[in-house]
Amino acid sequence: MKTNPGNFFEDFRLGQKLVHATPRTLTSGDAALYTALYGSRFALQSADGFAKALGLPRAPLDDLLVFHTIFGKTVPDISLNAVANLGYAEGRFLKPVYPGATLSAVSEVIGLKENSNRKTGVVYVRTEGFDETGDKVLSYVRWVMVNKRDASAVVGEAVVPKLEGVVPPAALQAPKADFTKLDTAASGSAHLWDDYAPGEKIDHVDGMTVEETEHMMATRLYQNTARVHFNQYTEGQGRFGRRLIYGGHVISLARALSFNGLGNAFTIAAINGGRHVNPLFAGDTVFAWSEVLDKAEIAGRKDCGALRLRLVATKNQPCADHPDKDADGNYPPSVILDFDYWAVLPRRA
Amino acid sequence: MKTNPGNFFEDFRLGQKLVHATPRTLTSGDAALYTALYGSRFALQSADGFAKALGLPRAPLDDLLVFHTIFGKTVPDISLNAVANLGYAEGRFLKPVYPGATLSAVSEVIGLKENSNRKTGVVYVRTEGFDETGDKVLSYVRWVMVNKRDASAVVGEAVVPKLEGVVPPAALQAPKADFTKLDTAASGSAHLWDDYAPGEKIDHVDGMTVEETEHMMATRLYQNTARVHFNQYTEGQGRFGRRLIYGGHVISLARALSFNGLGNAFTIAAINGGRHVNPLFAGDTVFAWSEVLDKAEIAGRKDCGALRLRLVATKNQPCADHPDKDADGNYPPSVILDFDYWAVLPRRA
Amino acid sequence: MKTNPGNFFEDFRLGQKLVHATPRTLTSGDAALYTALYGSRFALQSADGFAKALGLPRAPLDDLLVFHTIFGKTVPDISLNAVANLGYAEGRFLKPVYPGATLSAVSEVIGLKENSNRKTGVVYVRTEGFDETGDKVLSYVRWVMVNKRDASAVVGEAVVPKLEGVVPPAALQAPKADFTKLDTAASGSAHLWDDYAPGEKIDHVDGMTVEETEHMMATRLYQNTARVHFNQYTEGQGRFGRRLIYGGHVISLARALSFNGLGNAFTIAAINGGRHVNPLFAGDTVFAWSEVLDKAEIAGRKDCGALRLRLVATKNQPCADHPDKDADGNYPPSVILDFDYWAVLPRRA
Repeated sequence: MKTNPGNFFEDFRLGQKLVHATPRTLTSGDAALYTALYGSRFALQSADGFAKALGLPRAPLDDLLVFHTIFGKTVPDISLNAVANLGYAEGRFLKPVYPGATLSAVSEVIGLKENSNRKTGVVYVRTEGFDETGDKVLSYVRWVMVNKRDASAVVGEAVVPKLEGVVPPAALQAPKADFTKLDTAASGSAHLWDDYAPGEKIDHVDGMTVEETEHMMATRLYQNTARVHFNQYTEGQGRFGRRLIYGGHVISLARALSFNGLGNAFTIAAINGGRHVNPLFAGDTVFAWSEVLDKAEIAGRKDCGALRLRLVATKNQPCADHPDKDADGNYPPSVILDFDYWAVLPRRA
Repeated sequence: MKTNPGNFFEDFRLGQKLVHATPRTLTSGDAALYTALYGSRFALQSADGFAKALGLPRAPLDDLLVFHTIFGKTVPDISLNAVANLGYAEGRFLKPVYPGATLSAVSEVIGLKENSNRKTGVVYVRTEGFDETGDKVLSYVRWVMVNKRDASAVVGEAVVPKLEGVVPPAALQAPKADFTKLDTAASGSAHLWDDYAPGEKIDHVDGMTVEETEHMMATRLYQNTARVHFNQYTEGQGRFGRRLIYGGHVISLARALSFNGLGNAFTIAAINGGRHVNPLFAGDTVFAWSEVLDKAEIAGRKDCGALRLRLVATKNQPCADHPDKDADGNYPPSVILDFDYWAVLPRRA
Repeated sequence: MKTNPGNFFEDFRLGQKLVHATPRTLTSGDAALYTALYGSRFALQSADGFAKALGLPRAPLDDLLVFHTIFGKTVPDISLNAVANLGYAEGRFLKPVYPGATLSAVSEVIGLKENSNRKTGVVYVRTEGFDETGDKVLSYVRWVMVNKRDASAVVGEAVVPKLEGVVPPAALQAPKADFTKLDTAASGSAHLWDDYAPGEKIDHVDGMTVEETEHMMATRLYQNTARVHFNQYTEGQGRFGRRLIYGGHVISLARALSFNGLGNAFTIAAINGGRHVNPLFAGDTVFAWSEVLDKAEIAGRKDCGALRLRLVATKNQPCADHPDKDADGNYPPSVILDFDYWAVLPRRA
């Protein structure tokens, strides 16, 4: 058989390395599409001149464009037979990526745990993304529930990796820029790292309605082949009766909305965790709010610091009152994303 | 508060300068998206080789892509609380913009006039767009009706700027090209400046249906954040029950359609005025026709001249009979745009 | 009249040469859009690094992006008044096209045959595409049924060109690469030219639903002005009651789906024939399967060979059982494309 049936749960082995197909050169064309898809307005990624004034060679690509591109490569090997994408952890952005870079991805299976129904199991992989020089640009763990081909197949002992709940501040990296040169008129926000305090909640106000074409164009741009996003013929007969929007599309939408309140949160240093707690469909309108969970210095840097942010996205519900999970940890149906990350912001001199 | 609530009428001051956020590097990626969004076929913007044959370094970006980019930057400061965009005047395109240029925008408040209901007022701004060398590439005036935060707020005396009805021909600039080298087979039209006469009306024949995704992708590409274009949740409860298409999208659609009849009208030298006289919604089909209002020489140039054109766009009505306002100046519901501009066309030697 | 009414059947002359308008520079922006529109995953077109490892200067543009761009240029002159696009033959891809190339197109009328109803006739043209150096990059024949302006117009004797049913293997060209350097982990397929046998059928498994925006963005990207794709106002009153999707969009979708099973079929060397046997509309889901018709060596090359493939696309019907025409050559309504081409694949050393 020459077509790829994808791996089933019993096909994975602990320690297995998967070299993913289709390296991808990201260009200014991809950057333009990213802007058209999300309307992101962070100045660092929008303007070469702004980036140069801070000492960078040019505007880097959006960190999430890099993330989605690496993630997309893993789908044919990891999650073609997935039931659900369960979570992310230990995401680290290690090097800014500029137009012209060619990215590739490798994953290692770091955990396997069959479910009690024996029909599915959870696969944990650490995925690493590299540029054409061999430098690692991104590393993250995700775990995903994957179907077994054969429920009766006997699998090994469960191994669940111990994962950091939060990427430690000492591991955070910021672009080699001089953020004291920041022009806040150009960036659109006067609020620096110093101005945010743990516990602070920010409603990002704006809403963005999603159409079928947009999420499919985005997901194809990332060469992500997960069938639930593209195939109305099959999905129309499935659980939701329609195509499901790629979770990464939701993260990018919420992050773009977060410009309004976090305009100087230029880069993502780390992803501590993330869960897609309800599905998003075309026609829904996405809103978002953020909570400052923590703040930390970045080793060797006085010009910038890190904010640990929780980015919550909703559908068809404005976020003035910060819709959230209840005391038992249950999310209302309007909440679709709970994403925990470290952002880098300039500091006051 | 860290989010931008936008300025209300009483926040503006005469002479106030607003430095707009998010400079933007436009690339060949943006040019490709512009082509995909409108299907424009003007040879000068389509082919480096064609532009080089005329003596330019490469194909410049579409003038309207530049206009929309500059315009988009002004929205968060000028029109976030706008009720209606009322008009444009004194638009001048001062320098061709090539891929790689980084654009930024500054506006000055040149007029303020409270409406008699005291709930709104009209704000007049002159916006200037600059490239990364500091050269001015565009200047235009627009006026917009903006809500007051507080109807009882006392504002200053009304000041309404005196605006030129038409940009004078002496102010018009054409790209530093040699249009005598024009290849009319490549441009797709044998009709030069000499062949058009004031009073002439041209039906552009073709129609283009607009979908939600397209106008949102376009408006995000311009980083224009006007909420009426994006948020079905809110707009569904609003005046029209649906998202309103960005007026600049209509101008670009009509201009692209105008290729059929004005194939050598390569650049826009000036915008004399423009009004969006009815709203456009997804699912509507746009048609357009043009009227030659005037023609003028361009100072120091024998190879090209300027046509003053009125570009009228309709929805769901073909333009063979040139749908127009009536004797009292009232527009039929099918007319959506009345746009008055100077275009540059090659002249016969 | 300054607008282009298009040519009618009686306007064409045997041997007539048509120099088509609007040369077009294709850039990495166009390549990004092509990826976003189809999700193609062939490594050669996706990554500069992959292409360089094989000895090419960088990733070439997708052959079909080149084809659609050249094809689009011919529409205003050849098929603006067409009733139906009947077929393609003798397509030859003669030189890889890289971002930055400027393409132009010329056609020659090589056949004319009035239909017995005298209302329409078939026009045969050979179209050639050139890059900015004057090198020919593509040549193909298509024939199309075109309306007569006046049924009573008297036309010349019917001339039907003799066309090759299959481009002979001796004429096939492959990129000047060294495919022995192939990295099959990166390409995503271990199956080389040697592994395919005539008669083999491959279900490409995946399905892709098409929306109005996508096919219109694609067709505008190619600057193809055929009105049936864009104008819901007119088409809503027409034969199908809706817009018809550009046939080339179907070819690109099917080719992108064919990655799953033909991941090393990097380039298209020739188009032997192609027919759009049923229309595709927005909302339909496209599936595809391939049949290996033949295999051939490529002159002077031991590192790669050619497979003659038949690519069949369906709508709303998965292809596990290879839906096909019946014994009388009639296609079921679900089959939309029958496309016969030569692909180049690496050979085992």
